[in-house]
Amino acid sequence: MKNQVSQRMIDVQAPMIPIVGEWVAQHPGAISLGQGVVHYPPPPAVAANIADAVDKNPRVNQYGLVRGLDDLQAVIREKVTAENGMDLGGGQSIVVTAGANMGFLNAVLAIADVDDEIILLSPYYFNHEMAIDIAGCRPVIVPTDEQYQIDIGAIEAAFTPRTRAVVTISPNNPTGAVYPQESLTAVNQLCGQRGIYHISDEAYEYFVYRGTRHFSSGSLADSHDHTISLYSLSKAYGMAGWRMGYMVVPSQLETAIKKIQDTNLICPPIVSQLAALAALNVGSAWVREQVASFREVRELVLAELGRLGDRCQVPQPDGAFYALVKVKTTLDDMTLVESLIRDFGVAVMPGNTFGVSAGCSLRIAYGALERQSVAEGMGRLVRGLERLL
Amino acid sequence: MKNQVSQRMIDVQAPMIPIVGEWVAQHPGAISLGQGVVHYPPPPAVAANIADAVDKNPRVNQYGLVRGLDDLQAVIREKVTAENGMDLGGGQSIVVTAGANMGFLNAVLAIADVDDEIILLSPYYFNHEMAIDIAGCRPVIVPTDEQYQIDIGAIEAAFTPRTRAVVTISPNNPTGAVYPQESLTAVNQLCGQRGIYHISDEAYEYFVYRGTRHFSSGSLADSHDHTISLYSLSKAYGMAGWRMGYMVVPSQLETAIKKIQDTNLICPPIVSQLAALAALNVGSAWVREQVASFREVRELVLAELGRLGDRCQVPQPDGAFYALVKVKTTLDDMTLVESLIRDFGVAVMPGNTFGVSAGCSLRIAYGALERQSVAEGMGRLVRGLERLL
Repeated sequence: MKNQVSQRMIDVQAPMIPIVGEWVAQHPGAISLGQGVVHYPPPPAVAANIADAVDKNPRVNQYGLVRGLDDLQAVIREKVTAENGMDLGGGQSIVVTAGANMGFLNAVLAIADVDDEIILLSPYYFNHEMAIDIAGCRPVIVPTDEQYQIDIGAIEAAFTPRTRAVVTISPNNPTGAVYPQESLTAVNQLCGQRGIYHISDEAYEYFVYRGTRHFSSGSLADSHDHTISLYSLSKAYGMAGWRMGYMVVPSQLETAIKKIQDTNLICPPIVSQLAALAALNVGSAWVREQVASFREVRELVLAELGRLGDRCQVPQPDGAFYALVKVKTTLDDMTLVESLIRDFGVAVMPGNTFGVSAGCSLRIAYGALERQSVAEGMGRLVRGLERLL
Repeated sequence: MKNQVSQRMIDVQAPMIPIVGEWVAQHPGAISLGQGVVHYPPPPAVAANIADAVDKNPRVNQYGLVRGLDDLQAVIREKVTAENGMDLGGGQSIVVTAGANMGFLNAVLAIADVDDEIILLSPYYFNHEMAIDIAGCRPVIVPTDEQYQIDIGAIEAAFTPRTRAVVTISPNNPTGAVYPQESLTAVNQLCGQRGIYHISDEAYEYFVYRGTRHFSSGSLADSHDHTISLYSLSKAYGMAGWRMGYMVVPSQLETAIKKIQDTNLICPPIVSQLAALAALNVGSAWVREQVASFREVRELVLAELGRLGDRCQVPQPDGAFYALVKVKTTLDDMTLVESLIRDFGVAVMPGNTFGVSAGCSLRIAYGALERQSVAEGMGRLVRGLERLL
């Protein structure tokens, strides 16, 4: 009997979210600062439109175009032009995906052959590393600096003839870092010069604080032929369960991506596309109102962590709804995470799952809960760390 | 500047459905016997349930389990036990997918490494070949016999140490052939003996005619550890746009498949899962009522083709809603397809897209249209072929 599972899948890390989720389920009353989700539902227009569509719109039952519905494409085109500063006259294509993860997998397969390399900045988003492995390619991990910011020299030093792309996530999961325009421009220009791609994951584009501005690399002049921009409605519009995202890609990749998506999905679910259309028609002013409530919660998280003094270090998280805390301890992160759930009733994610192997780090996600629950959860976390460190 | 698209994607065939679809769009009034879809909408319970769920069920907006909702899992478990004769006590897992194509891609990635081989029977379903290529594996094409039936000796002769699976589709797309229990049993046992997998695509399980019975290889004793069964709601329940399918897999593959699906999709869209739940609760008696209307249409298609005498040959299509017609001509199939659309207003699919390279074949799909439209389309097709052959 041969090996029953492909070696590539044995080698891919097991995602930690379900494991921590199971521990939470085993400890009733535990507060989860684990999963990256928001606490608010979509704008009411979504439910209203869908109820109407499933009843009266026959296209909801039928196959649609691989790249997404024309009317959704049109609204996305307007949005990325107005909000992300893109000029789509330069030869780009929009592809609607069943979430931004699928957009990333599409991108890797479209640009990279087996054994080709993709540069990820660490701490990285685990599903990016997994996608590269699954595609038979090689993730090349380049650390960010002490503040989780881009080290352009380190990226340049990691290039090889097999490098096909550099991936940036800003605002960042898992660190909450927001990369300034200059850093992103440097990465984008470097990619352009080398004839490789810049994959820019902007799933958290609306989640910025303290006057920080989100910058889209796809708005740069001369970025059109080598920038792949990924977006998601899961967080911004509270629509995680609908699985809706989209990508803006250089047009030379459109045929390849349509082949992949045709084989994987055929077309994004029409019902979810109609929901996305309704949400985008409500628009980002609504999103910004929801995000406003995160500001105060973020301050609370940082103030609570401050009580731990020099036992923990928190590089400034100006975006998303994460803080990746460096903890001074000889314990490993999984032991700490298990103990925090079991003995103190609060769940966070271990840094190891984001490729942090030196030291002990914990990711706090503060988007899923209302202020009062976050306050209670942070209280437990600080009490726990005070005891365990 | 490097090559801008991965070689693997350049090497993958361009799917023909959108190309023929575009030709149809350019010829108003053309009747399409091209795409494999059914003409009926889902049972009314789907719309009713969804309207209610999006309004009142918050889980529609939230991430769910990678493998699918528990209540949907339970209904699928009942269905495959009662209808497909499976005994799920033997160590199988169910994974809900966003369509059966995704199930196939999941399967290939979970069992095959780069350069491993998967055996497809030709004529094959083009998305299967594409998925194998995209995964960096090698499709090994084994022809069926003159009647599009399984040639077990040819399969056995094609085995190499790198063979990881044999794929069967029954009822078959594109041929309409239904494989008898003996053939499927032979394939399944051969796979079991060799320690490889049998991937059994049963998307058309309800579409059988003339007393033909559908057989599920997963019902065989001792098949549990090497049989991957794929199902779809797209055709049976008229739900193509909702992208819902599921797979029954040996449990040793569950972890690998969940890693893949987590990276690709995170979870199947919850709204579509609730729609699937409503549809499966209506049940297969409803599906069989819809399929009953296809019997007469199928007879009509065969009768019309009979008028062409020995200019065409139609191996008995006892299932699905396809006939793959062998046409006696020196013209190539694409030329014929183009001319049929342009000059006679009827679209069919060229056999070449299903891997038929010898001779000229055309696939007729008769599921998308009501009887009257199929009659008109077949009239045009026969007139066209009478002129062109």
